[in-house]
This record gives sequence, C-alpha cells and structure tokens, in this order.
Amino acid sequence: MPVHSLEAALGDCERAVRLRRSWLESTTGVAPTTLPYQHFDYESVLGACAEMVVGYVPLPVGVAGPLLLNGREFQVPMATVEGCLIASTKRGCKAIAESGGATATLLQQGMTRAPVLLFPSAARAAAFKKWLEAPEHFATAKSAFDATSRFARLSSARVTVAGRYAYARFACTTGDAMGMNMVSKGVTAVLDALQASEFGDMQLLGLSGNLCSDKKPAAVNWIEGRGCSVVAEATLPADVVSRVLKTTPEAAAQLNTAKNLVGSAMAGTSGGFNAHASNIVTAVFLATGQDAAQNVESSNCITLMEAVPPDADGNGAALRISVTMPSIEVGTVGGGTHLKPQKACLELLGVAGAAADAPGANAATLAMVVAGAVLAGELSLIAALSAGHLMRAHMQLNRKAPPKANGV
Amino acid sequence: MPVHSLEAALGDCERAVRLRRSWLESTTGVAPTTLPYQHFDYESVLGACAEMVVGYVPLPVGVAGPLLLNGREFQVPMATVEGCLIASTKRGCKAIAESGGATATLLQQGMTRAPVLLFPSAARAAAFKKWLEAPEHFATAKSAFDATSRFARLSSARVTVAGRYAYARFACTTGDAMGMNMVSKGVTAVLDALQASEFGDMQLLGLSGNLCSDKKPAAVNWIEGRGCSVVAEATLPADVVSRVLKTTPEAAAQLNTAKNLVGSAMAGTSGGFNAHASNIVTAVFLATGQDAAQNVESSNCITLMEAVPPDADGNGAALRISVTMPSIEVGTVGGGTHLKPQKACLELLGVAGAAADAPGANAATLAMVVAGAVLAGELSLIAALSAGHLMRAHMQLNRKAPPKANGV
Amino acid sequence: MPVHSLEAALGDCERAVRLRRSWLESTTGVAPTTLPYQHFDYESVLGACAEMVVGYVPLPVGVAGPLLLNGREFQVPMATVEGCLIASTKRGCKAIAESGGATATLLQQGMTRAPVLLFPSAARAAAFKKWLEAPEHFATAKSAFDATSRFARLSSARVTVAGRYAYARFACTTGDAMGMNMVSKGVTAVLDALQASEFGDMQLLGLSGNLCSDKKPAAVNWIEGRGCSVVAEATLPADVVSRVLKTTPEAAAQLNTAKNLVGSAMAGTSGGFNAHASNIVTAVFLATGQDAAQNVESSNCITLMEAVPPDADGNGAALRISVTMPSIEVGTVGGGTHLKPQKACLELLGVAGAAADAPGANAATLAMVVAGAVLAGELSLIAALSAGHLMRAHMQLNRKAPPKANGV
Amino acid sequence: MPVHSLEAALGDCERAVRLRRSWLESTTGVAPTTLPYQHFDYESVLGACAEMVVGYVPLPVGVAGPLLLNGREFQVPMATVEGCLIASTKRGCKAIAESGGATATLLQQGMTRAPVLLFPSAARAAAFKKWLEAPEHFATAKSAFDATSRFARLSSARVTVAGRYAYARFACTTGDAMGMNMVSKGVTAVLDALQASEFGDMQLLGLSGNLCSDKKPAAVNWIEGRGCSVVAEATLPADVVSRVLKTTPEAAAQLNTAKNLVGSAMAGTSGGFNAHASNIVTAVFLATGQDAAQNVESSNCITLMEAVPPDADGNGAALRISVTMPSIEVGTVGGGTHLKPQKACLELLGVAGAAADAPGANAATLAMVVAGAVLAGELSLIAALSAGHLMRAHMQLNRKAPPKANGV
Repeated sequence: MPVHSLEAALGDCERAVRLRRSWLESTTGVAPTTLPYQHFDYESVLGACAEMVVGYVPLPVGVAGPLLLNGREFQVPMATVEGCLIASTKRGCKAIAESGGATATLLQQGMTRAPVLLFPSAARAAAFKKWLEAPEHFATAKSAFDATSRFARLSSARVTVAGRYAYARFACTTGDAMGMNMVSKGVTAVLDALQASEFGDMQLLGLSGNLCSDKKPAAVNWIEGRGCSVVAEATLPADVVSRVLKTTPEAAAQLNTAKNLVGSAMAGTSGGFNAHASNIVTAVFLATGQDAAQNVESSNCITLMEAVPPDADGNGAALRISVTMPSIEVGTVGGGTHLKPQKACLELLGVAGAAADAPGANAATLAMVVAGAVLAGELSLIAALSAGHLMRAHMQLNRKAPPKANGV
Repeated sequence: MPVHSLEAALGDCERAVRLRRSWLESTTGVAPTTLPYQHFDYESVLGACAEMVVGYVPLPVGVAGPLLLNGREFQVPMATVEGCLIASTKRGCKAIAESGGATATLLQQGMTRAPVLLFPSAARAAAFKKWLEAPEHFATAKSAFDATSRFARLSSARVTVAGRYAYARFACTTGDAMGMNMVSKGVTAVLDALQASEFGDMQLLGLSGNLCSDKKPAAVNWIEGRGCSVVAEATLPADVVSRVLKTTPEAAAQLNTAKNLVGSAMAGTSGGFNAHASNIVTAVFLATGQDAAQNVESSNCITLMEAVPPDADGNGAALRISVTMPSIEVGTVGGGTHLKPQKACLELLGVAGAAADAPGANAATLAMVVAGAVLAGELSLIAALSAGHLMRAHMQLNRKAPPKANGV
Repeated sequence: MPVHSLEAALGDCERAVRLRRSWLESTTGVAPTTLPYQHFDYESVLGACAEMVVGYVPLPVGVAGPLLLNGREFQVPMATVEGCLIASTKRGCKAIAESGGATATLLQQGMTRAPVLLFPSAARAAAFKKWLEAPEHFATAKSAFDATSRFARLSSARVTVAGRYAYARFACTTGDAMGMNMVSKGVTAVLDALQASEFGDMQLLGLSGNLCSDKKPAAVNWIEGRGCSVVAEATLPADVVSRVLKTTPEAAAQLNTAKNLVGSAMAGTSGGFNAHASNIVTAVFLATGQDAAQNVESSNCITLMEAVPPDADGNGAALRISVTMPSIEVGTVGGGTHLKPQKACLELLGVAGAAADAPGANAATLAMVVAGAVLAGELSLIAALSAGHLMRAHMQLNRKAPPKANGV
Repeated sequence: MPVHSLEAALGDCERAVRLRRSWLESTTGVAPTTLPYQHFDYESVLGACAEMVVGYVPLPVGVAGPLLLNGREFQVPMATVEGCLIASTKRGCKAIAESGGATATLLQQGMTRAPVLLFPSAARAAAFKKWLEAPEHFATAKSAFDATSRFARLSSARVTVAGRYAYARFACTTGDAMGMNMVSKGVTAVLDALQASEFGDMQLLGLSGNLCSDKKPAAVNWIEGRGCSVVAEATLPADVVSRVLKTTPEAAAQLNTAKNLVGSAMAGTSGGFNAHASNIVTAVFLATGQDAAQNVESSNCITLMEAVPPDADGNGAALRISVTMPSIEVGTVGGGTHLKPQKACLELLGVAGAAADAPGANAATLAMVVAGAVLAGELSLIAALSAGHLMRAHMQLNRKAPPKANGV
C-alpha cells in the first residue's frame, strides 16, 4: 500500500495518518509523538490542501481590536507565534479608535497572470503586443476569457517584450476568490484561441512567466498593483499619541522618515517602505485561510507619517498616518478559506464566503481590514521604537521565555 | 477583569480562553464556534507567543521526502493549506534521490541589526563611519557586543551614511538561535558605550533603521546576506528527468531562463529569480516554528538550470540545477521552536535545540534542508510547467474542491 | 556690468566670452588658456543651451558603420573620448552586415510627466485617481491637454496614490521632439482645469514628482516605458561569428547568460541587463544633440543571446542576439538638435528636423538606430570578452596612451 | 587604403579626416558640411580616444560658482546644451555661499572589478569564496594584485556565488586615476595566480561579470559604493532661502519629501532619490574629461532636506540640505583628462594630473566638487519647483528657442 495514498486505500483519514506516522517513525527513527493529529477534520483537507499528512501544527489565534475602520468595528484574528505582536497591534487599534477611527479606500482590484510566450522573432513578439493591446482585439480576448467563468472578468492585458519572448500580463476581477486558478483558466482559453488564429507561430513556454508576479518581490506589483490595492489612514490627536502610545507626533514622524523612507531607500528596497507590515499580513493571512506564501508581495507597503503642528491657539496638534498597500492578495472563497477554523475567523470579520450582491466586496473588505491592521501595527511599533522602549516592553511582557524581537 | 489579562487573573488558561470567546461573541455578535480551542498547551504560548488568545488554527503537516542531501535522508515537514505543494515537492525529492542526491553548501552565517542614528551633521555621521570601520575600533565594539551573550559574536559592522543619518549594520553569529533578540542586545551595548565616550552627540532614533533589513524585500540582504546563505545543487540524468518529471533537460532549462531569469528581470525583481521558493520556505517555516513573516527575505532565491548535452557516445545528457539563497533566517532554539508540535518537526529533521558541540550547526542544517526542499520544489514546478500539465495535474488530484493554483 | 549678462550688454558673444575668461582668470588665478573659444557659433547657444560661457570642449566624432538595419545602411555618428568604443561598435556592425542585417521594431512611443499633488486626505487622492482613470473623464483631460500644442497628444494618465499624495503619470506623443517641455505644458493645462472644477482641494506641490521618471534609474520606466521602446535583433551565422568576432555562438551565449542575466541579477540591477549599452547611447546622444543626462534611463537594456545548434546536416549554426530598450528618450527637433554640428550628425542619419508626413517618425528612426548601434556594441564586447582578448586589443590599438578599459 | 587607418597611412591627421569626410559623403550621400573639423588637436585623440574620426562636436562650457566648499571657492566648469542648467546651478551656489558655504566629506574611495568565474560545481564556487575571503589568503591575493601597478592597492575582495558561478568583486585604490584599467590588470594577475595554484578548475568566463558594476544601474554600487563616496551638506538661513531662492524652508523640505523620497519610492528607484543629479554630474563630467557613460551610477544620489524651526526668540529658522552620493567615478589622470580643453577645466578646479603627495587627493577633490555642484543644483531646482515658477523662468530666460525643460 503506497504511503501517499493511504487515505484512499483505507477510507479512514485518521487511521491513514496514524499508519503514516508509524511509517515515518520506521523510516526516520524518530517518532513524531508530540505532533498532534487527533481532533482534526482530515476530510476537509484531503485532496485539496495537503498531502502525506502526519498531523498538524496548531497556531494560537488572538484578536486585536476593536479596529474602528470606515465606521465599523472589527476584532481582527491573528495567528502567530511571535510574542507581543497581537498586543502591539491591539494598542495601535486603541489609539486609532480613541482618535475617531481610520479610513480605508480600495484603489483597484484585479488578479494577474502572465504566461511566457516564445515567437520566431522579436518582430513577431512585437506584432503580438501590438495586436493584443489594440482595443478592438482586446474585446476578442475578453470574450474568450470571460466565457471560462461566472466571475472572472478580464480588465486589461499588457504585453512586455524581451527579445523574442513576450510576457502577456492579463488582469481580471475574480469575485471574492483570490483568483489564481480562475485567471489561469481564462488565460489558457485566450491563448488557445490566438494560437488557432492569428498567432499559430506562438509557443507557450509556461503559463506563468514571472511577470504576474506571484510570491516574489517585484516592482511590477508595486507599480501596477495585484489583488487589492488599498490605502488606509488616520489622524491621531497629540494627546492620544502621548497617552496611548507614549510618544509624540514629532518623534514618531521623525523616526518614520529616518527608518521607513530613508533607511529603506538606502537598503535598496522595492515596496518595503514600512516597519513590519509583513508581521501583521502574515498573522491575518494564517488566521483567515489565505496563502501565507503570498505575503511576500501582499506586505508591500509604504507608511507615511506627518506631525500636524498646533494652530495659533495651541490646538489641533496631531499625527497623521497612512499605509498604502498596492498588492494585497486575498479571497474569502476557495483555498484554505473553506476550512472550518479559518472560516470561523472570516465569519468573525463578517466576510466569509461570496458577497451576496456585490462580487468581490468580501475580499475587498478583508483587504481593507488587513490594511487597517497594518496601520495599527505600524503606528504601535514606530511609537515603541521612537519611545526607545521596545526592549523594555519585551522584558516586562515575556517573563517566561525570551521571545524574538518584534520584526522591525 | 480586563479581557487581555484573564490568564493571569484566573490562573487557568483554557478557562481564560473560554471566557474570552464569550466576550468575543458578545462584542462582535459572532460565536467562533468552529474555531477549535481544546487540546492545546496554552501554558507554552502564554507571555511568549501570542496574546488575547481565543483558540487556534490547525495547519495540516505533511512530509516531503526522502530528500537526499549531503548524503543524509530527510523527511521534510511542511505545514500548508495549498493543495499539491507537498506532493509536488515530494516528486522533486524523488527525482533528486534517483539522481544520487543533492549537495548544499553554507556560504555564510550571521544575523544583522542596523539602528538608525542621528548626528548634528553629515560630517559627524561620516566620522562615526570612519571610526567604527577602523579595525582597531571594531575590536572595542566587538568586546562590548560579545559581553552581552554566551553566543552572540560580532563579525562585522558597516555604516551607511545618508546626510546626517548613519545606519550601522552589525552582523554576528548567534549560535542556533535566529538571533534577532541577541543582536539587538549586543547593538544596544555597543551604542551605549559609544554614546558614553566618542560620540556623545549621537542620537539613537530607533534600534532598527531598516538596513537590517527585516521582513522587507531589500537589495542589502540579497547582496550581503542575512541569516544563512546557502547554495544547493544537483545533476539529474536525462532519463530521470524524463521518467520522474515528464520533461526534458532542454525544455526545463529553456523555461527556467525564460521565466526565472528573463521574466523576473522584466518584472523588476530583486532576489525573486525563482518559480515559487516562497511556497516551500513558508511551509517549512510554519512546521518548524520559524517566523513566517521572515519568508519575505528568506525566500530570496535564484534558480539556475543548464542542459548538459550528451557526449560523443550519446551518454551523460543531464539537467544541472542549483538554487542560491542568501538570506534564510532560521533558528532551532527560541521563538516558536520551543512549542512541542513545532519541536517535533525539528526533531524529525534531527535539528531540535542547540547543537551540542558546534553552535549554529543545527540552524545551518535546517537552512540547508530548506534550500534542498526549495531545490526539489523548483525542479518539480518548472518541470510541470514545461510539460504544460500543471492545470491537468490539479484537476486530477483535486476532485473535491477547487484548489488554488500552485503559486508560480 | 554683471558677468552673467555680458552677451546682452556687449552685443558681441565672442567678445563677451573673452571678457568672461579674463574675469575667470582674475577670480580663480587660473587662465583657461587651452580651453578653446574661437570658431564657435555662440549665437545659437545664447539663451537656449548654456549660460556663463567661457569656451567649449570639442568632442571627437567618429562613425561606426555601415549599420544595416531594416534594409537601410547607416553610418552612426558617435562622440566620445573612450578609446576603442567606435572601433568596437564598427566591428559589431560589420558582423551584422555580413549576416544580412538587423531588424528593429518600435514597441511604443510616448513622453511622460508626473506631477506630485497633495490632497486633504488619502480618500480624496483615491477619488482623484478614480476620476482621472475613468474613460469619460480621461476624454476631458485629453481635450485640455491636446489644446496646448500642435503635436502633443495625450495617450494615457495613470495615478499612483501614496497616502494623501497622488502622482499622475501623463503619457503623450510629442511628434519628433523629445517632448519634456510639451508634456509639461499639457499637464499644467489639465491640472489648472481640474483645480478650477472637480478638485479645488488639490495642491500642486511640484510639476515633477519623480514618477515621470526623468534622469533617474527607476523601475517605472523599465516596466512601462518612456520615450521610444525598441527591440532590435539579428541572427549571425556561426562562421561570421568566428571570422569577424573571433568567438563561437556557444561561448558568446554562455557569457551573456553568466554576465548580463545572472551577474546583473546578483548585482541588484533594474534595467541593466547588458554589457555596456550606456557607452553607445551616450556617444550617439552627444553627437546628435540629445540630452546626455537622460542616458541614465535611455540605456535601460536587456541583451539576450542564444546559440542556435546546427541541423542534422551540420548547417545553420548561428548566434541569435537581441537588445530590448524600453526607454530611449530622443528627439530630432528642439534642445541641442538645432545646433549645426549636432544637426549635421542627424542629417547624416537622414533624421534631422520634423518628419514631413508622419510626426514622430524621425525620432523613432533615431531611437531604432540607437538600439541597432547598441546591438552592434553588445555583440562586439561580449565577443571580445568571451574571446578573452579585451586587454590585448586595448594594448595593440592604444600604443600612445593607456586608455580606460571599455566600460564592461 | 582602408578608411579606418588613414591617419597611419597619411601621417597627417587633419588630412585623414578630410579624406574620410569625402568618403563619408560618397557612401551616405550626405556631406557633413556643418560638422566642424578644423582647429582640433587630432594627435591627442589618435589611438587613445576615438576612431574613424570625421570632425568634432563643440559643447559650450560655462562656469557655475563660486561654489564655496570646505572653505575653498570653485568656479565649476559645466559642458551642456541644456538651457538654464548652468544658471540654475549658479543660483544654488550663490545661496550656499551666502549661507557660509557647504561641507563635503569623502566616505570611501575605491574602484571595483568583478570577473565572472565558472567552477565544476557550486560547492567548488563556495570553496573559492571561502578561500579568497579568508584573511590569510587575501594577503596572497593582495600581493599579486599590488605588484601590477605603482598605484593600485587592493583593499577588499568579496565573492558572490550563484550556482556554480562566482563573481569576485575586487576593490582597490587607484591613485588619481578613475582606475578601470588598473583594476582589470590587477585582477588578471590574481586570477592567473589562483588558476596556477589552488583553483586549476576555475574558468574565467569574462573579466567583467556585471557585479562591478560599470555603467548600469545596480544596487551593489548604491549599497557598497564605487569610485568616490561623498556626502555634502549645507544649512541655509531662512532669509537666504527666501531672498535668493524665492521659497521657504518648509515648502522646499515638503516638496523634497514628496518628490525625492516618496515619489522615487513609488517609482521603484534604486539610488535615484534626487531631482536631477544626473544633469550636473553629466555636465561636469563632460567638461573635465570623465567618462560620461559612467554617469549612470555616478548620479546615484539621495537628497535630504529639513526645515529647522526658529527658536523661542524667532531666530535660527533654516533649511538643512544634504546630498549623499556613493558612487562618483572620476579621475584626474588617464582617459579624456589628458586632452587639453578638458585638462584646462581640471586646472580651473586645481585638480589636474596626479596629486603630488597624496595619491587620490585630486580625484577625491573632484568628486567632492561634483557633489557640491549637485548640492547647488538640487537646491535650486527644488526651490524653483516649490515656488511653482519653473515654467515661467524658462519662458523669461529662453526668448530665442524653446529649450527642453530642466530634467526634473
């Protein structure tokens, strides 16, 4: 009985896992005794989420909130093993809430896929670019694309030529799904049609040519966006900054410029103009069944802060903060979102499943919550650093075990 | 009783979580019924890994292997909800094993931290750079640094000046810990000493100035490395490529150039010259208690493939493949590695805890396993794409639910 | 008499220059005796090209050719003080000509300008983006823009939001002018109209917000193009490669991958996937009156090479080469192109002044010549390096003075 | 008589040029009548600076100054055809001088060259890295290197591994030469020695592997420096800012952040955090015989501005500005610096030829003057843009011909 198909052979997932653990012990000499495997819904992952399963790793989920965003209150679920992260985000939420809340705006929504195509010559690759980008032909492509799904709607196609390679970056809306599968299917249909008509000399080398660009740091996502592009902002009165965050608007803004703008510039970043967006993105992604490997680009973020000086009467001093995140890739259907624990976290945010009347609205809300939580996290960490008390906070809170420093 | 300190107040973690779930339901109107909370060792995360805990998300763990690397066999634990990922990595491992195995080499090891410092003038910032980089003064700094820990050993300090800001990037070995806390402590000691002596006019704006660079895409990590820098390689006979991977060395190498070199170049990447390193890095990180938010830079990878032509007798045709990963940030002590489930996964690899005689050896082995698993993952995905059967594979395997496409 | 306005005061430019040289000697103590100043047409530069003139630097102009491109022969003028550069480019031209010539294709044409705008909030900046990118409003913007010039025609406007900043990147065709002035004028008209109507709360911080992006290395130009985007290609029979270039297709292609793809990837380049495009771009720009400071982005180039294996009969072995250059910024009217020496060089290429019937055709041809010359230059240098005889060639040719190495 | 060797055949350079012009007319059908060729010292360029010479392009040289830098006054020569550029730089100089002058500091000096080497395996490439970076072996390399020249002194060698490629970046001081030739010679000696001893299996694919990195935008130069790394700074009282520059410290600093930090960040730059450094760098390079093609990396620059608020008594308001330029590649011997016109410009700055007692001092001073002139140029352009009068200034000054807009 092959070890990878025990589930099918036995018809009992947990028993299959038990057998596989025995096999694992016999093959490695190590018994995975402390890796839990009971009380788990294996049926839901079978053939969909994981293979060769031998147990599970439970990630603790805490909530940071209330995040007051666009007039709604969210308790944001975060799955992490990094000490202080949830507490710090919660502190940021508190400061925002006491300041009247934050505002998030969706700038753009669309998943992309860019196959790599090979032509006999650069001139032919250029002809392909010219053809596909002509409005009249785009309509042809769109109709082939849109026919493949109830939700996928092609919104643009732009071709990058490099010698005789062409990378056609197709962008489409995908309802409330993150949408990688959908867009792949639509792209395949378009390419099939083109190969059968105008471009019989086109060779599909690979369905992804890295101009998509998925799970890699890439300027193309930073500049043109991928998934949901969101900007979130808040203005915090100086007294809130002082009372809740133990710093001043001036100190926070100064550090933000020194670290998130100048420091990141000197480090040669592309899209990493922030303190620790990846921490929050990863934790919310893990709690809500997103693809954590996509946090590479989903964490793209520029954090801006300004100290607003007081008016002539000495009033109005404040800290203005924003985070701009052009490529948050999320969905509320598909992938890990159908697993019950993760779905529970989506329900907590009121965004589980497909939005009834407005396809994409749940995914967009989730993206805005991610950005709002990043806003809170940036605020709290920059404040902590600017107050010079990061280490102290760690020592107080973590009496038991030496935690890792907050990623900064 | 404040909702964030129920554990301390009640002295019973699970009861605290139950109470917090009730509070959560009352505050949001949603009961997190399907988010599990029982059968979890809350004591181990309390005050160390998470706050405001309301349950946990169980991530299925599968094993990909045997990965034959440097003469040893590893069953690599991966925690993921992405269908096909483990199966695909396993297929790559099989092709490697049938080819005699892979070789991984550690190029460099060292964690970094770069505080941002403000001086009265750029000239003073320049003087600081000159001072700290002078061999005789480096010794002074090193002795202050090394005194803060049994494991941390300062290996270099390089200062980047931008106007009157100075970013001092300290690099050190940290034994088997990922080491962010250690290096922060050492840096603080050095700065305290300098402020008390030569540089009383130096102002510490923040312990991290983003030249570290942590959890952000940044050329500095790509170029100078962070954590473990590893290269892994294998040479696969053409018949293994054909039999196991269903493609040819030429097709795989052609696609690798078109996608991972040219496509990534056109996308404006820095460090993302690969197909889906982030997928494997994230899954191994989650299984072994690493900081998943650090996959942003830990996934930096360039994948190279060459088709070796047959000799005059028609023998020796092969596919040569390598992955070079300059910034894999891992530890086998500290952080989430002390949690029992994650520790079980480290034990499976034989790298749990501190290496007895050679500090850092366990972390280095873990980094090499990560690189080896990435090698397998790259091989399998490039092969699948080049064979044009990615979509088909998905459809066959996933009869139940439509999975997300493999990140490509 | 103020030293900067001697020309106006004296009504005799050369006398003004003579007086200014005396002043210069008296103020610095150094007489610029060997800086020539006679035989120069000062009237043409007065008030247009330079101020505080004290003489001129004569740059030698040589010709590299014949460059056989798209069926036409060009003798390409290059102004440089770098030994071997023209000879090396000429050698590449020879190899191309003996292979039947090269082909260049224009992929796109359009100059860009991106003012930075400040709004009261990120939400308002987002509203601006939504408004301007809506097809119906774009038409409004276009009509305001196009009214400012006979040649400028707005082709797109895309807004990048960062907090409450908005950077609106306007792209337009500009006839045969490089077009920076034209696009600035058009953008000003659009912004005036918008401030007077929908966006009274919009503040123009600066007419350029660096997303244009002019004279800086920037992924936005690499990805979206600026000026003329051109791809040029050629296929050279193996015997031409061997006879003229003293190397083999395999050796050249291997080095091209190792240096221009992998080496540049490791160096963290954005757009610099070539050997020395900047050398050729700069020399042609200087000869033809272009803005040499724009070679920063005009030199963006990816050079690809493939060794074509022989067929079954042992025929057809060849080297395929291409250069893709997305942001060549050139004009044949305006700027330094009206100066007689530079205009002579444009005339030599048959592209002086505005194209009679097809606005932009002369500028496009010039851009294609630039790309064709870069093709020749890349070919020659990669061949020389791969043959290991770069140093030797230098020593032979330069008996008199030790030249700088060809930029490589 | 071959057209490329007329000089040698005739023994009369000007006659050779005349003959070549006739040939050019006969081959292209265009007589280069208005391209000047008389009154030029052809002997100095023969076999050193250009080939196939048919005349010259005279670039007008103006002076911007006095630039008060480190207590000395410089009249900075600039060769350009861009209207307003010299006048604008001069205005910046005036503001600096009235504020007591600027300070420039040399951070680092060293030319680099990185050959690409191929090994049988990645493990061997890694062994090479380990070997060369070990202090004891570095000494061996240094002694081979230093023996090749009176001036070149190896200062470091760092190896980047990518699969079985190794890119060894050698850095050395080169006296007052820009030094590319020198470093190439030294590197060759080291590689010869290594191939003959420890690394007989090492194959030199090319003397430059693009990690140098020469004439390409590359993070490696931005982060590690190349040539001279310089920071220049000044503090301007608010009244000087207002009187000379027609703006305020606050407006200038606000625009600098919006454009040079945030705008450049959004554009995906690496090293282009400035307004128009390339303009000034290119003009000074052309006047002083530098390699203008190296302006790609020599223009790397981050411009920072801060508004200093007034003290309690209302005094002390000021604008603080700095430019940090890590890779200015200049020399005062070799290349085009021996040509008399260019040498006259070096003499004007007091930096012609080799520094008598301190090798490298003249090159360093030239680099600091470049940075100082960039400081003036940035100041003036940001002021002009922030005052919104860029277009107006152009219209006033350029009554004759429509100039290109200042590159911004």
